[in-house]
Amino acid sequence: MKYEIDLNSDMGENFGPWKIGDDVDREIMSYISSANIAAGFHAGDPTTIRQTIEWANEYGVAVGAHPGFRDLVGFGRRHIHSQPQEVVNDILYQLGALREFTRLYQLPLQHVKPHGALYMHLARDRPSAQLFVETLHRLDPELQLFCLHGSWTWQEAKRLQHPVICEFYGDREYDASGSIVFTRRVGELDPARVAEKVVRACVEGKVTTVDGEDIHVEFESICIHSDTPGALALIKATREALNNANIRVRSPLQNSFNNR
Amino acid sequence: MKYEIDLNSDMGENFGPWKIGDDVDREIMSYISSANIAAGFHAGDPTTIRQTIEWANEYGVAVGAHPGFRDLVGFGRRHIHSQPQEVVNDILYQLGALREFTRLYQLPLQHVKPHGALYMHLARDRPSAQLFVETLHRLDPELQLFCLHGSWTWQEAKRLQHPVICEFYGDREYDASGSIVFTRRVGELDPARVAEKVVRACVEGKVTTVDGEDIHVEFESICIHSDTPGALALIKATREALNNANIRVRSPLQNSFNNR
Amino acid sequence: MKYEIDLNSDMGENFGPWKIGDDVDREIMSYISSANIAAGFHAGDPTTIRQTIEWANEYGVAVGAHPGFRDLVGFGRRHIHSQPQEVVNDILYQLGALREFTRLYQLPLQHVKPHGALYMHLARDRPSAQLFVETLHRLDPELQLFCLHGSWTWQEAKRLQHPVICEFYGDREYDASGSIVFTRRVGELDPARVAEKVVRACVEGKVTTVDGEDIHVEFESICIHSDTPGALALIKATREALNNANIRVRSPLQNSFNNR
Amino acid sequence: MKYEIDLNSDMGENFGPWKIGDDVDREIMSYISSANIAAGFHAGDPTTIRQTIEWANEYGVAVGAHPGFRDLVGFGRRHIHSQPQEVVNDILYQLGALREFTRLYQLPLQHVKPHGALYMHLARDRPSAQLFVETLHRLDPELQLFCLHGSWTWQEAKRLQHPVICEFYGDREYDASGSIVFTRRVGELDPARVAEKVVRACVEGKVTTVDGEDIHVEFESICIHSDTPGALALIKATREALNNANIRVRSPLQNSFNNR
Repeated sequence: MKYEIDLNSDMGENFGPWKIGDDVDREIMSYISSANIAAGFHAGDPTTIRQTIEWANEYGVAVGAHPGFRDLVGFGRRHIHSQPQEVVNDILYQLGALREFTRLYQLPLQHVKPHGALYMHLARDRPSAQLFVETLHRLDPELQLFCLHGSWTWQEAKRLQHPVICEFYGDREYDASGSIVFTRRVGELDPARVAEKVVRACVEGKVTTVDGEDIHVEFESICIHSDTPGALALIKATREALNNANIRVRSPLQNSFNNR
Repeated sequence: MKYEIDLNSDMGENFGPWKIGDDVDREIMSYISSANIAAGFHAGDPTTIRQTIEWANEYGVAVGAHPGFRDLVGFGRRHIHSQPQEVVNDILYQLGALREFTRLYQLPLQHVKPHGALYMHLARDRPSAQLFVETLHRLDPELQLFCLHGSWTWQEAKRLQHPVICEFYGDREYDASGSIVFTRRVGELDPARVAEKVVRACVEGKVTTVDGEDIHVEFESICIHSDTPGALALIKATREALNNANIRVRSPLQNSFNNR
Repeated sequence: MKYEIDLNSDMGENFGPWKIGDDVDREIMSYISSANIAAGFHAGDPTTIRQTIEWANEYGVAVGAHPGFRDLVGFGRRHIHSQPQEVVNDILYQLGALREFTRLYQLPLQHVKPHGALYMHLARDRPSAQLFVETLHRLDPELQLFCLHGSWTWQEAKRLQHPVICEFYGDREYDASGSIVFTRRVGELDPARVAEKVVRACVEGKVTTVDGEDIHVEFESICIHSDTPGALALIKATREALNNANIRVRSPLQNSFNNR
Repeated sequence: MKYEIDLNSDMGENFGPWKIGDDVDREIMSYISSANIAAGFHAGDPTTIRQTIEWANEYGVAVGAHPGFRDLVGFGRRHIHSQPQEVVNDILYQLGALREFTRLYQLPLQHVKPHGALYMHLARDRPSAQLFVETLHRLDPELQLFCLHGSWTWQEAKRLQHPVICEFYGDREYDASGSIVFTRRVGELDPARVAEKVVRACVEGKVTTVDGEDIHVEFESICIHSDTPGALALIKATREALNNANIRVRSPLQNSFNNR
């Protein structure tokens, strides 16, 4: 049973003149506690990044970097066969770009969460996960790493005692192995069902898989994607259901301030 | 007094996962006679190009290439200081890319219309206009060139007797010199006012400038941009007003078939 | 025993201000019969494309399109997990862009040869190969398709009776399965050894694999990459060795003219 | 008469597989005191950035960010008509990306020097210069700003008392106004003449313009571009001439440490 939970969403995923999903980042900011801000390789240009950080600042949302594969046209959802070193360098580049804007607003950079195919690549490719976590730990040992429980990213972070935040995906389906079933396009979901699933995961630590069986889930943050159709309604319903269940929505950063 | 007029709009300006404006290209196709299809440098990826050409084919809309400066993040609306030769080569590249998809559907390529800042660059920079029109004429002497009456593009085309289609911009303001007042962002316009302005231009050959004076306008095609907010309503209202005024909407290609 | 053979090389792989390998495209043109010209996604900008086609024209070298994955920084050598339809659309786009420049110089477009990771993707992924070859056959049933003997690309082309040219890689190693051992970086090779290997492949139809055994090879064209260090020396030595062995270097296009 | 001077060069301007100029960055590092490292928009990918910073670290060269217009194909040498806010955001993004790699090697970031057309844009466009310098001063009041004496960048920095380093261009020609005559391509220069010109500028504070007259020059750093043909010889000759004239080559960072 959780009394506090983080609620994160991918933000700032427009690019130049183009909008992703329902273009409701600002509205979503009032319901979440952590924002994963696209850092330019799969989405997000400098002006979008800055605007998104201004909104995060305005709504008191903790900021994280959301680096992706260099693949605008594929929105970072396509795996690019890469060497560990180039993967890590691409992440550092995007991390720094994002961090500079947080510096301008004197905000802390709370976390890093790789995006899409890069998130899965690091979860599954041990050499990349190892080099990434080792480099991150040397660079910034306090920067929270958002990842999937049990993934290589998670295992390497545990090994180095690097701080991790495990995620529960409110708008994705799970299979029996505890993996999320990734799809390029997600259809419209029912807000009440998503909210109920999230609250159950918080209260019981369980989720029902695509095969109908219950599995245990470990997490400290709930993720709902902002480009899921109807994302705002999903996030709003989830936030309200958490409030009603007396589960407080707080970022890891707020929690760590509290614990001190 | 015109009895027939072309109605064109910029189509296929999405990119990868992102949408431009109201994302109503397909709906717009049922009201226009010519589509300027973004060719990849300022907007439009190969899959978007193909989908857009399929729709043009389905609705019997004539297809043109809409090349721009290589500037995705700026949507080709920012002038890039370029040499005439590189401008021309960039246009040829995009023209060919677009033409290949028309070939796949056995459609003719009716026209080329440069986009945004490239359109204005060719209108104002004589050496670029000259090299562009000369190269185009050598490459494809029948390909209609959409341009602004009096621009350098137009003058060079007239000099070489290359076929041109002059445009009247239904959703832009004119100044006393007959130039359109370009803006990066256009606010919501009133469909009835736009339609009335277009019909008046067709019937009287006149438009009222931002300074309140009437000027004469020469054109064979009306352009309404698909990324103007409320574009579908503008185009629909314009088409209906033209129908009511007994002005037939036909592409230059349909007209030239008729004249033979 | 072959009396005539095609000799092809990848050309036009510079980008903007940057040079690939030894930057000796023009010199190489005097030794080869077919040029695979980079079409913009992995290398090659419009101005480079045009310059390369001018050189091909000057030296009487047959022109082919060399499309790649959209990956400049990785030079198209990294596999991008893609759907068959987007792969095919990306190829069509690049094919058309290249074709437009051949049109400007009134040259025929002889062939298409996918580049790097895209070449291997089509060789190994049957759905992509099938959709690619079907679309190509519908678009341009005479356009020669350069591929690896036995690959899915080759099998699909054989099935549809689409004209293919199989390649022998003079500057790559073979394994027992007849596959080339792809590497991101190739070290300096000995021109005499490469030339000897090529002549033996032409005369005996055999090559020695990395494991030291001889395998049979089927091909109508020899490929030597222009970005291999010392490429010019390799190609020159190969051409001279072919001349000395009385094997005439001719493009498929020249051969087909001959056969008529 | 100067006893100490900084010697800077643009470094890390390769991209992916491509090389710029003579590809001698590492050799140049042994002669210079400050490196302007390309930050990804006009040149430089994350892996190149990291390699370049490793070399700077190895040779004790002070590191600066070298942001440019987003224009790979034009190498940031083409002016892109941009709003001040987007110019500044693009610079912040690149600055941060570069800074992250210095952080990894526990190096200070000494300076920022805009590249090519962006350097000239900020020199000439007052609103952009003002917003840039104000933002930079708020972000990092100690970060040295490399600029041209008398430019708007310089004037705004003086107004805010932001630290500036004025440059003398050893490999460029000056006109009577003290402006450098920018060209897209610079021919081969004579090392002895460049070295002599630099030493004279240091000793007498004067340079001869393209019109043959002598003008006064103010500077604290000498710039020789690494993509000038024969750059290594120019830089080596300049360094040796400075040594012979007993003018010590030191970065601003070394000087500031000294002054404390």
